[in-house]
Amino acid sequence: MSGQVKLIRKFIVGVMGSGDSAPPADCSLAYRLGVLIAREGWALLNGGRASGIMEASARGAKDGGGLTIGILPEKDSYKVSRYIDIPIVTGMGDARNYINVVSSDVVVALPGKAGTISEIALALKNSKKVILLNFDTQGLFDTYKEIGLLQIAGSPEEVVRIIKKEILKIQTRP
Amino acid sequence: MSGQVKLIRKFIVGVMGSGDSAPPADCSLAYRLGVLIAREGWALLNGGRASGIMEASARGAKDGGGLTIGILPEKDSYKVSRYIDIPIVTGMGDARNYINVVSSDVVVALPGKAGTISEIALALKNSKKVILLNFDTQGLFDTYKEIGLLQIAGSPEEVVRIIKKEILKIQTRP
Amino acid sequence: MSGQVKLIRKFIVGVMGSGDSAPPADCSLAYRLGVLIAREGWALLNGGRASGIMEASARGAKDGGGLTIGILPEKDSYKVSRYIDIPIVTGMGDARNYINVVSSDVVVALPGKAGTISEIALALKNSKKVILLNFDTQGLFDTYKEIGLLQIAGSPEEVVRIIKKEILKIQTRP
Amino acid sequence: MSGQVKLIRKFIVGVMGSGDSAPPADCSLAYRLGVLIAREGWALLNGGRASGIMEASARGAKDGGGLTIGILPEKDSYKVSRYIDIPIVTGMGDARNYINVVSSDVVVALPGKAGTISEIALALKNSKKVILLNFDTQGLFDTYKEIGLLQIAGSPEEVVRIIKKEILKIQTRP
Repeated sequence: MSGQVKLIRKFIVGVMGSGDSAPPADCSLAYRLGVLIAREGWALLNGGRASGIMEASARGAKDGGGLTIGILPEKDSYKVSRYIDIPIVTGMGDARNYINVVSSDVVVALPGKAGTISEIALALKNSKKVILLNFDTQGLFDTYKEIGLLQIAGSPEEVVRIIKKEILKIQTRP
Repeated sequence: MSGQVKLIRKFIVGVMGSGDSAPPADCSLAYRLGVLIAREGWALLNGGRASGIMEASARGAKDGGGLTIGILPEKDSYKVSRYIDIPIVTGMGDARNYINVVSSDVVVALPGKAGTISEIALALKNSKKVILLNFDTQGLFDTYKEIGLLQIAGSPEEVVRIIKKEILKIQTRP
Repeated sequence: MSGQVKLIRKFIVGVMGSGDSAPPADCSLAYRLGVLIAREGWALLNGGRASGIMEASARGAKDGGGLTIGILPEKDSYKVSRYIDIPIVTGMGDARNYINVVSSDVVVALPGKAGTISEIALALKNSKKVILLNFDTQGLFDTYKEIGLLQIAGSPEEVVRIIKKEILKIQTRP
Repeated sequence: MSGQVKLIRKFIVGVMGSGDSAPPADCSLAYRLGVLIAREGWALLNGGRASGIMEASARGAKDGGGLTIGILPEKDSYKVSRYIDIPIVTGMGDARNYINVVSSDVVVALPGKAGTISEIALALKNSKKVILLNFDTQGLFDTYKEIGLLQIAGSPEEVVRIIKKEILKIQTRP
């Protein structure tokens, strides 16, 4: 149990990507992204597990002094990453992927497999902005690029620039 | 209210694809697929709405004398297709896409947008066999093709052949 | 895999009650209720498991020639009762209790513990009619009795009479 | 967007109770409970809405310097209380009541109607400790009192004493 709160409605950035199979280079990107999100004063939300992109992004956010939220598929929090401040327990398996994306103000997707693709798809289906970081979805979501819902970033820094320029400024939530 | 039951555990084929934006050619394929599924004595499961692939596949299944199940995103059944025998009301929005695929013994995906892609992804993530019918997912799911979880069919007839040859024969459920 | 369908929108009666701990007398009531539901041409929906009120009511419905739907908490159907025609797999644990009640046109509750009470409560919260059969909820839901949402039946036959007299006649769904 | 975090795994107290229909006396209790929860360094979790017990308990927790989490039934956060730090958007209607209780380390229930009763029942069903504050559930959950899962508190101060004496000391989570 520990200290120091005073938040009220932080902007929430969802960070999605591979669990166990994430390569080190992607984990480094995720860590860096986590640090940058925290420095902006935003909260980071992910799937909460202690592996891959989830663990790396949460660790980055905590090293950056930020707040981390993990939406867990199990009905308890035994598998939660130790870098997660707020574990939300759903007991809903991958149906929780829907909660991951509708709870995020914007979704960033690093490389992943079917789980990550389902999150990109559920986000776009629900008109949530998605930024791909180092993840080539091979044209499958091109119609969403054309309408500006899906964007491509080459670095964590560019993710932050896109959020500040194109999302925060049109954000209607307080 | 109407007649004639005597079922007990039918094999369930999930049929996914576009709603409102489905082109007529895909709806014809979906209708034909529905007829064939019914003739095999299988049940058809879809998203339950009165539009696109959902409506066409359910209509086909009923014309073929089959049973149809619709998993609805709303918390009532006002929008259900009139070709659905069993509307399951979830009130869960697109989180119900997960139920669509884990309730199906096999998933067939016709062309669709983000909703359909989320269903393909959630199915594969949960080791459910997926057959693509006339839907080019542009290499995004190639790793699942390699392990035989994702297959390609050129016609409704081929979908049925794949199910009979590769899925039913290894089916462990009664 | 087996025969003979021709349904399209049956009236769905949800039957809730204890699993493993259901006493034989309640199981007999549940069986009898299942038979009567089937004879009216209605479908029976329950939690799908092979125990207690679930198993007994489904067995009754099948013996009566009816259709049975089971909404399962697991993400597979291994534990489904053999008297269930349509297993719906949710993988959502007890969150599926909500689906049980919103998918039913009316909910009948036999004696149960916390799971059954949660289903009564979720039904009433969502303005779904509930009929208690042999279950004394000790005044906790009295405000819902006063507005006619909760009713008491002394026998399976009375459940059917209440449904026919007070629910079917005001049913707006086709 | 605002400042000062440094949390990592706070103990989460779920606070349930009426929305719009909560009487002022119960709202005062809920406010006081919120203050005390915050002073212990615990996080408060509730249904997130800007009414009744939810609004009052969250306001108390923020006045006490604490962290507040709201699990919303809608698929957006427009109706969230302004005293909620972390809105979790589920889009699942009352199925989110399950998430409310399995995400809490302990559940406190103030007077409420069917929604609150469903939360008590879902908590007990999932072996989560429940403390009733000023809420007489009329013997319906007596079997859970006997096994120590359900307890009665006469004041917010007593809720805190029960948590510290009987729950925190057996807490196995870090």
